[in-house]
Amino acid sequence: MTKKEYTLQQMAELLGVERQGPANLVIRGVGPLQAAGPDQLSFLANPKYKSQLESSRAGAVIVHPSVPGVDRPRLLSLNPYWTMAKAAQLFHEPPDLPVGVHPTAVVAPDARIAPDAALGPLVHVGPGASIGSGTRIYGHVHIAGNVTVGDQCLIHPNVTILDGCRIGDRVIIHSGTVIGSDGFGFAQDDQGRSTKIPQTGIVVIEDDVEIGANCAVDRATFGVTRIGRGTKIDNLVQIAHNVEIGEHSIIVAQVGISGSVTLGKHVILGGQVGIAGHLTVGDGVRIGAKSAIAHSVPPGQDLMGIPAIPHKEWFRNYANWKRLPRMRDELARLRKRVDALEKELGRHGKDD
Amino acid sequence: MTKKEYTLQQMAELLGVERQGPANLVIRGVGPLQAAGPDQLSFLANPKYKSQLESSRAGAVIVHPSVPGVDRPRLLSLNPYWTMAKAAQLFHEPPDLPVGVHPTAVVAPDARIAPDAALGPLVHVGPGASIGSGTRIYGHVHIAGNVTVGDQCLIHPNVTILDGCRIGDRVIIHSGTVIGSDGFGFAQDDQGRSTKIPQTGIVVIEDDVEIGANCAVDRATFGVTRIGRGTKIDNLVQIAHNVEIGEHSIIVAQVGISGSVTLGKHVILGGQVGIAGHLTVGDGVRIGAKSAIAHSVPPGQDLMGIPAIPHKEWFRNYANWKRLPRMRDELARLRKRVDALEKELGRHGKDD
Amino acid sequence: MTKKEYTLQQMAELLGVERQGPANLVIRGVGPLQAAGPDQLSFLANPKYKSQLESSRAGAVIVHPSVPGVDRPRLLSLNPYWTMAKAAQLFHEPPDLPVGVHPTAVVAPDARIAPDAALGPLVHVGPGASIGSGTRIYGHVHIAGNVTVGDQCLIHPNVTILDGCRIGDRVIIHSGTVIGSDGFGFAQDDQGRSTKIPQTGIVVIEDDVEIGANCAVDRATFGVTRIGRGTKIDNLVQIAHNVEIGEHSIIVAQVGISGSVTLGKHVILGGQVGIAGHLTVGDGVRIGAKSAIAHSVPPGQDLMGIPAIPHKEWFRNYANWKRLPRMRDELARLRKRVDALEKELGRHGKDD
Repeated sequence: MTKKEYTLQQMAELLGVERQGPANLVIRGVGPLQAAGPDQLSFLANPKYKSQLESSRAGAVIVHPSVPGVDRPRLLSLNPYWTMAKAAQLFHEPPDLPVGVHPTAVVAPDARIAPDAALGPLVHVGPGASIGSGTRIYGHVHIAGNVTVGDQCLIHPNVTILDGCRIGDRVIIHSGTVIGSDGFGFAQDDQGRSTKIPQTGIVVIEDDVEIGANCAVDRATFGVTRIGRGTKIDNLVQIAHNVEIGEHSIIVAQVGISGSVTLGKHVILGGQVGIAGHLTVGDGVRIGAKSAIAHSVPPGQDLMGIPAIPHKEWFRNYANWKRLPRMRDELARLRKRVDALEKELGRHGKDD
Repeated sequence: MTKKEYTLQQMAELLGVERQGPANLVIRGVGPLQAAGPDQLSFLANPKYKSQLESSRAGAVIVHPSVPGVDRPRLLSLNPYWTMAKAAQLFHEPPDLPVGVHPTAVVAPDARIAPDAALGPLVHVGPGASIGSGTRIYGHVHIAGNVTVGDQCLIHPNVTILDGCRIGDRVIIHSGTVIGSDGFGFAQDDQGRSTKIPQTGIVVIEDDVEIGANCAVDRATFGVTRIGRGTKIDNLVQIAHNVEIGEHSIIVAQVGISGSVTLGKHVILGGQVGIAGHLTVGDGVRIGAKSAIAHSVPPGQDLMGIPAIPHKEWFRNYANWKRLPRMRDELARLRKRVDALEKELGRHGKDD
Repeated sequence: MTKKEYTLQQMAELLGVERQGPANLVIRGVGPLQAAGPDQLSFLANPKYKSQLESSRAGAVIVHPSVPGVDRPRLLSLNPYWTMAKAAQLFHEPPDLPVGVHPTAVVAPDARIAPDAALGPLVHVGPGASIGSGTRIYGHVHIAGNVTVGDQCLIHPNVTILDGCRIGDRVIIHSGTVIGSDGFGFAQDDQGRSTKIPQTGIVVIEDDVEIGANCAVDRATFGVTRIGRGTKIDNLVQIAHNVEIGEHSIIVAQVGISGSVTLGKHVILGGQVGIAGHLTVGDGVRIGAKSAIAHSVPPGQDLMGIPAIPHKEWFRNYANWKRLPRMRDELARLRKRVDALEKELGRHGKDD
């Protein structure tokens, strides 16, 4: 879609890395080793794929300076995967959307729309809302009243952002996601019938957060549901009311986080993990896919399982579980040996 | 957002509870003990938080009459949490939406819209549909043909209600939810290729149901998928075709209920629970989060696990599972002792 | 909704099966044995329900030729369930949508819309997109730029299909589903902060695929995320970037498939299954509901569990797990017997 091109020297400067090879080599894109062509830059993130580098048609490659025997034009990086991401960003543009307000968009008269924001077809922006500079609101997005969306955001088609929620700068929200639905809060009478506890809080999404498709982030009962700066959330994730997620965490698809959970910074939750309500998960915790967190977790732990336990303990228990049939057999053999011993000793006794 | 206020006496009357303290104290909202200010009403739902009450700035508090030593202005309730919910409802209004049909809404000529209903921007209401009195249909909602929505409902932005489905009174449906998608029904030929079984039934949602964001409720193959009166459903829940859910049940986020399951009344399903097809789950059953229900469940049981078993049994088995390494060690020790006994007895035998 | 009718003879011809009974019997629909009336066709897919056939009011029935003692008008089929599906299709029409472009639809001037396609109210079709013959795009659907939708497709309300994705012929996509959201790809710096890897690939959905409500199918990082011909996907399913799914597979609700997974043909995944990244699952594999796939799976296997193991092995291990309390008791008894033996032998020793 894009027609951008850079020389290898320009890329080295833009990425802040050392170049080895022809300064004027023209690069028109980034691709994996097996697919990149002579005008593309590729990358060797893991030295074990070096044979793929040898057979690659890529015109240039990003490599770690310690990789021996690379004679192809190259950019040297201590973190080739990171440099690849930054290089690909140079070539990438989000889907086109003209600056200004599409004639079919419905925008409240008192909404503040930055002059260089772009609002697509059939968008709605409610009263008191504001849309920041350079932000793109794609078609069919519903922005309710008093919502704030910061600068340079991408709000993809069919997203819903509900009353009063606040979105920071450079936030990306993918299609179908709902920000600010009511939390799941009810009081029960003595017959077990539920009455709704009004959910009067909001959702705050800090800068540089990305949220995948068809997620649900509930507003707080009172106060704020918060997603910390730089955190990345995959598709179909449930974030309940009053959850607080720290900075730079990573939450994989179909995770469910119950109400009033506090997650630290740099937490990683694998796919389909569930966290019970009111728990605290410390900084740097990593939880394996499909685990269930039933107790608070101190910082730095690696857990897995249902319920989750430390990673090593889980593997030991699992090994024992698989060994159960053998344990049963062993138990049966021991019983027979004890039977025999008792019989023998009985005979002895008699013989005495 | 709201500017409502009541005196403590007015609140006591509206809530049907006893007041102790100044009748004319003005209350402008409801909040938790740590956050409520001098013009707000708070609540002590659990006596163990009584120290928070002492340090709270709340102007008044809802307490159980048995709590000793409360001298703050107060409302006495046998169920303070319920009374708090009802009090908060007095101050809460759903997001504003003017009565009438927004000029950008697309409404079929033969659709019946109650004069005091509100249809937001870019809403669609199909042929033969009807929208009841006081109901609010927020922006971007898609109501297909022949759908019935009752009175005093809140249908939040971007909800989809498909052909012929029937929604009762006072129903709340949150953004992104789909009511009446086709059930997952196919016949296979001898090559394992699927052909679609047309899904010709509907979904019926009874009065006072609330459904969260980004759920999917499939229409029946033939007949009706039904969600019983007063049942509350959280976000991202899957309800397959021909499911019948009883009254006043509670279904937490990311639950999946397979086709033709019958759930009783007052059932509680924890988050991420899955229920296999064609099962019956009795009244009052409670299933722990992330459990898998593989067999029908008699009324009144508490189950958990994958597959789910009675709660107490699960805890006992789990304790044994964690004790497996110790059992292995014990087994090894016993084997050595039996080895020694056999050797000893062998020597005895020889000595004899 | 439909007013179609056929004679029994017409149905036999359309379905390519043998008729027994009056050729002119008029059939106006298909229904289950307990609900079908005298002008409806029912079916006996499983001989164990034969007593229901006897009490059914159905005017005619589809049965296997081997079922004895059926004297009702009937169609004979070696696969009655398949024939029922095909018969029901004869009576079924998708929700009505007039051919042509609704006046409130927003269609880019260079989009190609087949003359007999139908675009509903408030639809968006972006630049360079094309919509095939006989395809119905229901209200509120968002088709982004350069998307291709084939012939005879049904794209239900509120679906989002993003830039450049390609949809085959006779594809059905249910409401709320998102095709072509960005894959979850980030590079981390040495501080654990993430930067986005632009997702420049697309999604290709082959002919005769059906995808349920509120699913998310991510575009590839580079290249293609592909869903093979004839595959059927239920609601709330997550399909990550670069996944390849073979033909005629069946994926039940709330499954999550991680990035770069390759699924074979005729694979069946039960509800809530999770598959870890970069694995290969062979042709004909069947995975039980709620399982976690942590390793690649050779063709033809039946697995279940967390982590998944062969079906029979899982049942054996589960039986042992339930027997753990008994094993503990047995171990305790053996220990006492060994205690006693040692004591006895000690006494013997002394006595000697």
